[in-house]
This record gives sequence, structure tokens and C-alpha cells, in this order.
Amino acid sequence: MAQVKNKQIVLKDYVNGFPKESDMLLLTSDTINNLKLPEDSNAVLVKNLYLSCDPYMRGRMSNSQGRYIDSFTPGSPIEGFGVAKVIDSGHSNFKKGDLVWGMTRWEEYSIIKSPESIFKIEDTDVPLSYYTGILGMPGMTAYIGFYEICAPKKGEYVFVSAASGAVGQLVGQFAKLSGCYVVGSAGSKEKVDLLKNKFGYDEAFNYKEEQDLDAALKRYFPDGIDIYFENVGGKMLEAVLSNMKFNGRISACGMISQYNLEQGEGVRNLTHIVTKSLRMQGFIAGNYFHMFPKYLEMVMPLIKQGKISYIEDVAEGLESAPAALIGLFSGRNVGKQVVVVARE
Amino acid sequence: MAQVKNKQIVLKDYVNGFPKESDMLLLTSDTINNLKLPEDSNAVLVKNLYLSCDPYMRGRMSNSQGRYIDSFTPGSPIEGFGVAKVIDSGHSNFKKGDLVWGMTRWEEYSIIKSPESIFKIEDTDVPLSYYTGILGMPGMTAYIGFYEICAPKKGEYVFVSAASGAVGQLVGQFAKLSGCYVVGSAGSKEKVDLLKNKFGYDEAFNYKEEQDLDAALKRYFPDGIDIYFENVGGKMLEAVLSNMKFNGRISACGMISQYNLEQGEGVRNLTHIVTKSLRMQGFIAGNYFHMFPKYLEMVMPLIKQGKISYIEDVAEGLESAPAALIGLFSGRNVGKQVVVVARE
Repeated sequence: MAQVKNKQIVLKDYVNGFPKESDMLLLTSDTINNLKLPEDSNAVLVKNLYLSCDPYMRGRMSNSQGRYIDSFTPGSPIEGFGVAKVIDSGHSNFKKGDLVWGMTRWEEYSIIKSPESIFKIEDTDVPLSYYTGILGMPGMTAYIGFYEICAPKKGEYVFVSAASGAVGQLVGQFAKLSGCYVVGSAGSKEKVDLLKNKFGYDEAFNYKEEQDLDAALKRYFPDGIDIYFENVGGKMLEAVLSNMKFNGRISACGMISQYNLEQGEGVRNLTHIVTKSLRMQGFIAGNYFHMFPKYLEMVMPLIKQGKISYIEDVAEGLESAPAALIGLFSGRNVGKQVVVVARE
Repeated sequence: MAQVKNKQIVLKDYVNGFPKESDMLLLTSDTINNLKLPEDSNAVLVKNLYLSCDPYMRGRMSNSQGRYIDSFTPGSPIEGFGVAKVIDSGHSNFKKGDLVWGMTRWEEYSIIKSPESIFKIEDTDVPLSYYTGILGMPGMTAYIGFYEICAPKKGEYVFVSAASGAVGQLVGQFAKLSGCYVVGSAGSKEKVDLLKNKFGYDEAFNYKEEQDLDAALKRYFPDGIDIYFENVGGKMLEAVLSNMKFNGRISACGMISQYNLEQGEGVRNLTHIVTKSLRMQGFIAGNYFHMFPKYLEMVMPLIKQGKISYIEDVAEGLESAPAALIGLFSGRNVGKQVVVVARE
């Protein structure tokens, strides 16, 4: 029986500290029989097209025994969101030729054994890679984190950190659509320019050029911050807490500055949460996927009418995936980091 | 015209670090004419009976320019919650002989110029001093912080720090009434015994005797904590975050361990807020006083039927007030700290 070769990106072992490309390995396996599922399978066999690099994946590279996120399995392919084409299906929801997005693996072909983690793509009148970002998990993250968690009101003051990333670029635009004043921080002049000139941020600054983050925030928010969309943590969070207004809301989406530290930076001014009646809330977009149709209804017309901008940083080829993932943690990507495995 | 002498406790100057009795001064003024208000006044003149010592008052002893809580005025009497009797009234809501609770000053007689900050006591069939605690601001704080902020469900695991204080003793009992499992921490064997034997806590421990707070919490909550009622902050909060369950809620009522520090202790594991979808919310009972009647409806029958326990630490005489207030910060009080100025 014919065997199909399947290139894979495999995690070598659990990672401590800052991850490196060499923590992952390109292997070639030959496990899938002639690109056919066994007769009695109810899995879905897909050809992966686009893979998503997301900051939360750092947590899965550590040994997370007793924690709340499953680790990757050393020796097995990395798992992550992606866009794929169905090659064979034993599941009634999917048929050969369907395009899907959802949880897949970093390899050319994957057998999806839990098809409840993939969703059929109905609208292909947009770039398919968008389903790793604005039309996928990061889009839902921006939507839920901003609208559901922060309940923005017109005229409120919004701050977004890591603002040019997959999520941040959308939050800023949602904030403008809601009539808010929005300022973003990012790590390069190029990104700051994008925030102001492409994503419609009212103001933006390069946090690497600020000696004093507290002073920077006071400059941009002399009357304080109502809503903070938190992607960074650590010193940035500390500076933000000092500048939050009474009844402010913090959507705790991520804390990318802390993921590679053995010991997190201490945040020393949490008493602001008490004295200013702040609400800080973590969330996981996956717990809100029932709201995906509602989100699509809002965002799809905005995309098609050109009322929302979206920038991708595209890495070509499965072999480029490890560097693309590592790049997130030094801020090398500009916009949503995608890896193209195949274009259909 | 006759002048009435009026003993007062005055803040000498703004306080840095740990407050001392000598930061306050007993003065005798003679400002109130024959215990009568001027004809055209719409204020209320009261004789103070019971004064409340509360941890939040530490914040008002500092120079809070630009912060969200008003400082006390150096040279003027301390302000605080209390129970008082109306001596004269220029306001239609109050008449001579009425008993009231609300914001008054640390002196024998006070002229209340903003009578919207006092409430008439309708039910005097309970000790009047209760209106500084279980029937006043601390009671509302426990009620709002537990029921409104944490939305407890039967069978959930609840942890309360500073659990024998005015608020904590009530939260534990509310938790038991809601069918939760509840553990409290306090700072002495006497208090731990009270928690278990008087307030119905399932378990309690003396945090001063624990080398490792994280290990202590793992001992009492092998499956994790759903609800944390936060009165302490700092290292205790850090240990709690490590032990919170997914979708846990933290009611940020106070952080008494941090109030006298020049620089707060750093909390290094806030990434748990992201990865476990935690919600941490500060609140001020004063913003929920519209719910006071609803609270009374719940708690008054419990008091009268002996279904709730409540312990006060009573200091006699206005002159004992500074020591009573300072004692809160070393945990000297056992139960709600009250100062008796006069018994009617």
C-alpha cells in the first residue's frame, strides 16, 4: 500500500526560558496510507494550508503538569490553529474538498481525531489565511476581549499594548468603531507608524524608547485610562494600573513579556484594583466560540467594504515555522504571523 | 451664649509608613453654640455614640493628591463611619432624637453638613454599635463583595484572608449559608479558634505559623479555590493565584498588608489571570448603598434568630480611638473594632 511522506515540525523537549529554533525539529514521517482514512474512522484527514503562530503557544512548550493548559508532547508535531483542506472524511460534518479552520498540527497532512475542534469555512471570498487571524481565534480574542469583557462606551479612553499584533491591530480598530480614543504601544518605529497610519490609532508609542512607562502613559492619557487591553504584563501592567480611572476594566488577553521568564516580574501596585474599583479579567476565546457567527456577521462586511485593515507577516514553507514562532517573543513579526504550508 | 466643649481626635499631619498613636492628637474645642444649629442651617447636629475603625482609613491618612480617595485634613478631626443621635436638625429627613449611622467625625458632637451621608436607623432592637459593622459599611462590604462580585454557587471552594475581621467573619458565614466550603486565615491562635468554633469556617490557619503559604493553601484546597475574598494582598495574593481554579473569582476588598509599605510587594504570577480565566474585581461598598434595604432584609432575621455570629472589639472612650485604629494594622483587634464615645 502506498505511503505518503509527511513533513512535520516536532517539539524536541520541554522548553525553559526563551525558546529557540533548535527546540523544534523538521522530520519526515510516512504514516498516512495513500491519503485515505481507514473505512471505520470518524476522523477527518486534512492537507494543511496555513498555520498560525500565536503567543499562547509558548505555554504549551513548557511542562505544564498540574497547570491549566495542555503541554505539547515532546517528539510529536506542534499543535496550533490553521486552515486546511479536507482530503478524506469519516465524519458527517465534513466532506472531501471542504475548507476548514481550527486546531490542527504543524505538518503537511493531519488526521483530526476531534473534529469538534475544526470549523467549516463557508465564505471563501476573502484570503483563506484570514481564518488564522481576523476570521479565526485572534479575531474572536479581540472581539470577546474588547466587547464582552470591557463593555466599551463611546468616548472612553482605551490603551492597547502589543498593539500591532494579530489581536491588537483589531482591538484598536474596534475601539475607533465604538467611538473611543485609543492609544497603542509597540516595539519599533515601523509598528508605531502602522498603528497611526494604517490601523487608525489616535496615538502610538514605541515602548522601547520610553525611559518611564508611567510618564509615557500620563502624556497620552492625562485624564486616565478606562479600558486596558492587556497583551504584555509586568512593568507595562504596573504603569497602566497607576493610570487607570475609577471603574476601569482590564481585559487580560496575554502577558507576552512574562512567558519566557523563570520568575515573573513583580507588579507592586495592585492596591489600585481596590481603591479604583478596577476589574481585571482573563479569558480564553475558545470558551466563546458559540459567538463566532455573531462575530462574523459584524466583521465580514467590514472586511469586504475595506473598513478594517489587517496585516499579515507571512513566512513561506513549513520549514520556516519554528523561526516564525520564536520571532513572536522578540517582536520580529509585523502583524499577524502566518506560515504558508501550501496554497491549496 | 453658652459654648459646649467638644473633645476631638485630630490628624496631626500626613502619615508615611506605619501610623502611630502620636500621629493623632486629642484636642478640646468649643465651637458649638449651646448644642443648637443656626436658624437657617440645613445641617444635622449629632452626638456621636459609636465610631468605627476600618482599614481603608489608612489611605486617608496619606497625602492622596491625585488619587481616588480624599485625604483627611491635617489639623481637623478624623472622619469615619459611626452611630450618632440627632440633637438638632435643619434637614427635613432628620429630627431631634433620631438615631443615625453613616459618615461622621471623631469628636463628641458633629455638625453633619452633607446629610446624604447619614442614614436613619429604623430598627433599634439590636445593639446600636452593630450599625458600625454587620449592619453598616462592613456588612455591606461582605454582602456585595461575596454575593454581587463573586456570584457563589453551592459546593464551591472559598478562601477568606483576614477572616476574623469585621468583614471576614461575615463572609465566612455567608459562604456557609450558600453551601460553600470555606477556609479562613488569621494572625493568632485565638482568631483561628474563633473562625472554626464561632464563625463556622470549615478550616482555618494562622498565616504567621506557615513557612510556605502556597503549601498551606494546597493542604486546605487540594482541588483549588473557586472564590477568594481578598483582604490582605502581597504574598498572600501570590500564593492564592497559584491555587485558583479555572474561572475563579477574586473579590478585591482590601490589601491591608500593603497599606503601610512605601513600595508594595511585587506579585509575580499574574499570568494565572490569563491562563485560568480569572476575574479580579475591586469595589467600594459605598457605591452599592442602594442595595442596603435588600441586605437588611436578609441579615436582620439571621441576627435576631441567632443564626449569625458577630464579634466586636470595643474600646471605651474617644481617647482610646487612636490606639484602636492603629491596632488594626498589627491585627491587635479581635473582631470588629468599635470605639464607644457615649452610650446614648
